[in-house]
Amino acid sequence: MNINGIPTRTIRPAPRARAVDIIDQTALPYEYRLLRLTSLAEAAHAIRSMQVRGAPLIGATAAYGVALALTRQADDQTLATAVATLAATRPTAVNLRWALARMQAHLAPLSVVTRADAAWLEAAAIADEDAAQCRRIGEYGLQLLRPLAAERGRLDLMTHCNAGWLATVDYGTALAPVYAAFDAGIAVHVWVSETRPRNQGLLTAWELKRHGVPHTVIADNAAGLLLARGGADAIDAVIVGADRIAANGDVANKIGTYLKALAASEAGVPFYVAAPRSTVDFACASGGEIPIEERDGEELRVTYGHAADGQPIQIRQIPADQTVYNPAFDVTPAKLIGALITERGNCAASTEALLGLYPEMQNNA
Amino acid sequence: MNINGIPTRTIRPAPRARAVDIIDQTALPYEYRLLRLTSLAEAAHAIRSMQVRGAPLIGATAAYGVALALTRQADDQTLATAVATLAATRPTAVNLRWALARMQAHLAPLSVVTRADAAWLEAAAIADEDAAQCRRIGEYGLQLLRPLAAERGRLDLMTHCNAGWLATVDYGTALAPVYAAFDAGIAVHVWVSETRPRNQGLLTAWELKRHGVPHTVIADNAAGLLLARGGADAIDAVIVGADRIAANGDVANKIGTYLKALAASEAGVPFYVAAPRSTVDFACASGGEIPIEERDGEELRVTYGHAADGQPIQIRQIPADQTVYNPAFDVTPAKLIGALITERGNCAASTEALLGLYPEMQNNA
Repeated sequence: MNINGIPTRTIRPAPRARAVDIIDQTALPYEYRLLRLTSLAEAAHAIRSMQVRGAPLIGATAAYGVALALTRQADDQTLATAVATLAATRPTAVNLRWALARMQAHLAPLSVVTRADAAWLEAAAIADEDAAQCRRIGEYGLQLLRPLAAERGRLDLMTHCNAGWLATVDYGTALAPVYAAFDAGIAVHVWVSETRPRNQGLLTAWELKRHGVPHTVIADNAAGLLLARGGADAIDAVIVGADRIAANGDVANKIGTYLKALAASEAGVPFYVAAPRSTVDFACASGGEIPIEERDGEELRVTYGHAADGQPIQIRQIPADQTVYNPAFDVTPAKLIGALITERGNCAASTEALLGLYPEMQNNA
Repeated sequence: MNINGIPTRTIRPAPRARAVDIIDQTALPYEYRLLRLTSLAEAAHAIRSMQVRGAPLIGATAAYGVALALTRQADDQTLATAVATLAATRPTAVNLRWALARMQAHLAPLSVVTRADAAWLEAAAIADEDAAQCRRIGEYGLQLLRPLAAERGRLDLMTHCNAGWLATVDYGTALAPVYAAFDAGIAVHVWVSETRPRNQGLLTAWELKRHGVPHTVIADNAAGLLLARGGADAIDAVIVGADRIAANGDVANKIGTYLKALAASEAGVPFYVAAPRSTVDFACASGGEIPIEERDGEELRVTYGHAADGQPIQIRQIPADQTVYNPAFDVTPAKLIGALITERGNCAASTEALLGLYPEMQNNA
């Protein structure tokens, strides 16, 4: 999407150099800083330290990490080491493992002299495919939004966390339909929930601002009041991403998603979940089987911002000895979800509908 | 309640001095600092700057402010000026006006030489009555909690914001039943929602810790996941305070209360609202008539904590030019409320039940 009018991806090969440029997301939204990755070690560090985040972007970065390694030396041992090193950076990221397996399967049969060039091409293909997939999610999502916009002459949406282009190579998942609507000339406004404890909503605000999409930041607590408003002030739809979708359509997503889904359901506001095929876990029967990751309590106790002198700073909001509980995800039951928006089209949140879109998964369900 | 084992009120006359001691709540939870108020100006400043907060505590502080003024000079003009000065500190606080009207009605007929002593006695009476009222809320609330505790051998509760003794003279409203259960030897644990944007949940954690009540702080977003848990991990009840209760039982309370009520209702967890008579607005037919105060966006953009050197610090979390929306309250419809806990007993959230408890209000409804 655009940064001050210039189309920008979250990761891209550096022109005339065997290197890739990323946005250092650990500095956002307080500082916009590009980083040039020139080695396997730098790519591994970028993933581990969350300079890149979001499953699709992590996968693309890992693919480029293999290319960076093979540029220096392209023997079998180097390939194996690169894959193992990158796989170890984020132990639970499914997309990371998928991208590395694809790179290895593609490169291993090739001769050593052709591997580096092939690795750069394959990494670019992975990135391009992710961008294309997200663009399709945007187009299918727009099909759901157009009738709502036509009815009211504008579109008032709510999202949670950051499922935008910062989490992918381009377009995003939940925000792809928002950008599609905006770029189609629809007067769209987005309510952005700050998404404590890690405030990824501020990343959403950052990228919406760079692309020029009008938006308002709210405390997570304000979502219920806003969704309960009817009439001229009513919100047209909620769109969120997903971390995992069970075979029955239950959705695990960033903590707090479920509360928004309850409030939307109570008010009759459509609640949409946008995600590609790779997010659907057909081996997982229902949301109850999805393990909920508990993260370090320091995420809750320590927070970030700008000091009075404008310098980035972290402060302790809650004492280190205060007991806290920091679950990263919650599960929204399928019954609260109006539609799933995927790169193959929109469908109901149900086993039948998902298998209708992905018939090749019939045997895995 | 106790601070490190010592019974402490939020406001108390200083021994052997015509002064009152308060806890400077602007410094909490980062610093526990007592302040001695010795003049009308200091009392007015304490209310205006939110060194004291919570409607009952504001009322008691205003009453003592009149006593401080009359200690220096007790003529009619001084009394009128004191009442006017204190009334202007927080324009929307109903309890403030009520306490001042009571002081004026009591003191105006008295001779100038007896007024100062009478003012100190009446202010103490107002404070004592508030404490007694909150203690009764605690006892009635305990009647609802005992059966739940008996069933499971422990009590797992959730609250929102701070409706504890810090907001009153003692005991609190929502937390009064918690303290009553704890003091009765019940193994109670409280989930404390941080309550963005102003993080009053940290005040709740502070006072629970000082009294020794086990508790865990969570992001507001985590409430849905916790309430959806069943079985051994299930939460027994949610207890919150109220800013205003409409005649039909709809409750306006701190933003985010409604989301917890929805999640509690969905999970079959009882949702209780604890508040004294003065919170019920019999002239307000339903929640739809309650105006929602929108507060300064800087409350959302700027946050507080400790710097690395341990000093209190404020930082900018969201840029000053970012559009934000900061509503202070939301409305929880009566249908989601299991019971109202008052100083006269517990009742359903309905006009009939409220008038049953407060028959003298029949003509106001």
